[in-house]
Amino acid sequence: MTNRSSRIEGFYSVIPAGGIGSRLWPLSRADAPKFLHDLTGSGQTLLRNTWDRLAPLSGADRIMVVTGRAHRAAVEEQLPGLEDHNIVLESEPRDSTAAIGLAAAILEKREPGVIIGSFAADHVIGNLRSFRTAVKQAAAVAAQGYITLIGIQPTEPAVGFGYIHCGGPAEIAGIEGALKVDRFVEKPDLATAERYLAGGDYLWNASMFISRADRLLEEIGRSEPEMLAGLTELADVWDDPAERGPAVDRIWPHLTKIAIDYSVAEPAAAAGSLAVVPGHFDWDDIGDFASLAKLNSGGRTSELAILGSNARVLADASSGIVVSQSSRVISLIGVKDIIVVDTPDALLVTTSENAQRVKAVVDALKLAGSSDVL
Amino acid sequence: MTNRSSRIEGFYSVIPAGGIGSRLWPLSRADAPKFLHDLTGSGQTLLRNTWDRLAPLSGADRIMVVTGRAHRAAVEEQLPGLEDHNIVLESEPRDSTAAIGLAAAILEKREPGVIIGSFAADHVIGNLRSFRTAVKQAAAVAAQGYITLIGIQPTEPAVGFGYIHCGGPAEIAGIEGALKVDRFVEKPDLATAERYLAGGDYLWNASMFISRADRLLEEIGRSEPEMLAGLTELADVWDDPAERGPAVDRIWPHLTKIAIDYSVAEPAAAAGSLAVVPGHFDWDDIGDFASLAKLNSGGRTSELAILGSNARVLADASSGIVVSQSSRVISLIGVKDIIVVDTPDALLVTTSENAQRVKAVVDALKLAGSSDVL
Repeated sequence: MTNRSSRIEGFYSVIPAGGIGSRLWPLSRADAPKFLHDLTGSGQTLLRNTWDRLAPLSGADRIMVVTGRAHRAAVEEQLPGLEDHNIVLESEPRDSTAAIGLAAAILEKREPGVIIGSFAADHVIGNLRSFRTAVKQAAAVAAQGYITLIGIQPTEPAVGFGYIHCGGPAEIAGIEGALKVDRFVEKPDLATAERYLAGGDYLWNASMFISRADRLLEEIGRSEPEMLAGLTELADVWDDPAERGPAVDRIWPHLTKIAIDYSVAEPAAAAGSLAVVPGHFDWDDIGDFASLAKLNSGGRTSELAILGSNARVLADASSGIVVSQSSRVISLIGVKDIIVVDTPDALLVTTSENAQRVKAVVDALKLAGSSDVL
Repeated sequence: MTNRSSRIEGFYSVIPAGGIGSRLWPLSRADAPKFLHDLTGSGQTLLRNTWDRLAPLSGADRIMVVTGRAHRAAVEEQLPGLEDHNIVLESEPRDSTAAIGLAAAILEKREPGVIIGSFAADHVIGNLRSFRTAVKQAAAVAAQGYITLIGIQPTEPAVGFGYIHCGGPAEIAGIEGALKVDRFVEKPDLATAERYLAGGDYLWNASMFISRADRLLEEIGRSEPEMLAGLTELADVWDDPAERGPAVDRIWPHLTKIAIDYSVAEPAAAAGSLAVVPGHFDWDDIGDFASLAKLNSGGRTSELAILGSNARVLADASSGIVVSQSSRVISLIGVKDIIVVDTPDALLVTTSENAQRVKAVVDALKLAGSSDVL
């Protein structure tokens, strides 16, 4: 149940919808990126699920989507409630600092003092009540000037995620539960991940940034002053259709490609202006087909998960996942932990333990000139 | 090199081209049976290779093909040299005794005393010189009244073949090398097959029958007298187009379905009128995809064999076989001994050790009403 009481005062949602999800090739690809797929069998795309999750918090009229020009039609089809002035189109991908920074600059200009929350378009979240509680708490922390993350309480020693090493309580007047951030660790090995899980002071980094827009821009300006200048210039003319295009052409292609983790989160952590709010809800970034298999089999690795509304699968003594984008008969016999992804122009056959290597195939196909299937 | 000296006097080749090859589904299927595929990368179908092998022995004008009505056009396209009176069309499959027996009856009526040699349309043979030598020798034995088999000298303990247990020399005046047949053994287990290989008195049964047509009919009449009556009646009118059709409709559907191994070979062996000539050439009936993989990788199981003229395969750390009937990109990562068969309407993924279980899938699809892909 959601109602008006979920609303967070002065809050704006930002959904950066970029990233192909190469490890989910041939399902995810340039013209059908991960966020445009239903990967949970919910009947809705991940993007739409993200929208539905955020609308109660900010209001549907206060959700901004930053995406590539090529995806405009698909995004608008998925999100009929998305207002024209809330779709920000990138002429080319420039990574997350530029994407989220531009949204921050536009929103700050329109509404000084606004608090924005940025949430990936292609993650899966369970327990929405806990999610909303965490975002509310993070927004309260952000109002005090902190760049605020929501970190996920780990439930297993995952090796595919980034980890946040938490310091002590952030000690913010009137707010409990927020923690300082000590450092970030990218995809640890299993032994390290097990140690993190046992230790209890690590959270998964879910790429959820909640911050006052002015504070975010300030942090960007500290590490990437040219970027801030460019974003400010863009924001100044953004709502003027005649000036926007030329400004984008002039500025956007020259912005530094840098993830917001490096331009904002790490420096802010070092400066003591980063806080993290622990989130007690299920979360997955579905980083590869092994995750997808797990997610869709309810964790029962002995089963065969099947994704695809027209799938015709006949399996005997097989486990793993079949993703079918056709109505072809797919027959599996005696294959364990298998990954079969059947699309009209490309087929992938691998196993769970090789799931992370799918990206290398995409790179090899690029090199081989097979971009028709990428 | 072949020349007129390969010709065997009074010899007629018969090619029963029936049998779908269910263990090679979804490649082989009702409308595209095994014999209509190029399974060796030779650029020709197995049927055409069979024809080319036999033409030097009997002459191209003395090759009879027995096949289903549905395959007439495909067979004629494959075999432009096949003469009209040499194609025998079955209105429905009635197993090998009826198919080969009808050919024998027609040919015996046309040319009393003719020696026929029946060779499956979908086997692979190497070393054609040795093959021709064996057929010539078998024809000489057959001329003496023996039902004669060519048995293949085993080179490994194969579990997918039938074995012939040889007795002593057949002691036929003026002919050396022919052996008596003691008994037949179908697909033994590995331990038994290893014993057979070590013992040296077992040959693989390659379903090559060489016999005087009158003797073959006599043997059929001994075990299946009604069958013989039916075949004789059919042969009597076969060359009269007006009478043939009604006779087929009246007789063919009622002929007993029985393999020639049971109606002729086993009783003849028991009666001492069966001989076997050892063949020292490579032979394979390509019984399943594991055989096909082996055949196409030159026996190197660490390699990935690829069949399909438009195949676009990108493989990393994978072995087994990919059969591609499309130009889709097929990507394999870290899958060993894998079998991937990609056809327009059906996909099979299994492993070499499960290759024999493919037939069960076909049966399951039949039960499930998925005959569109069978």
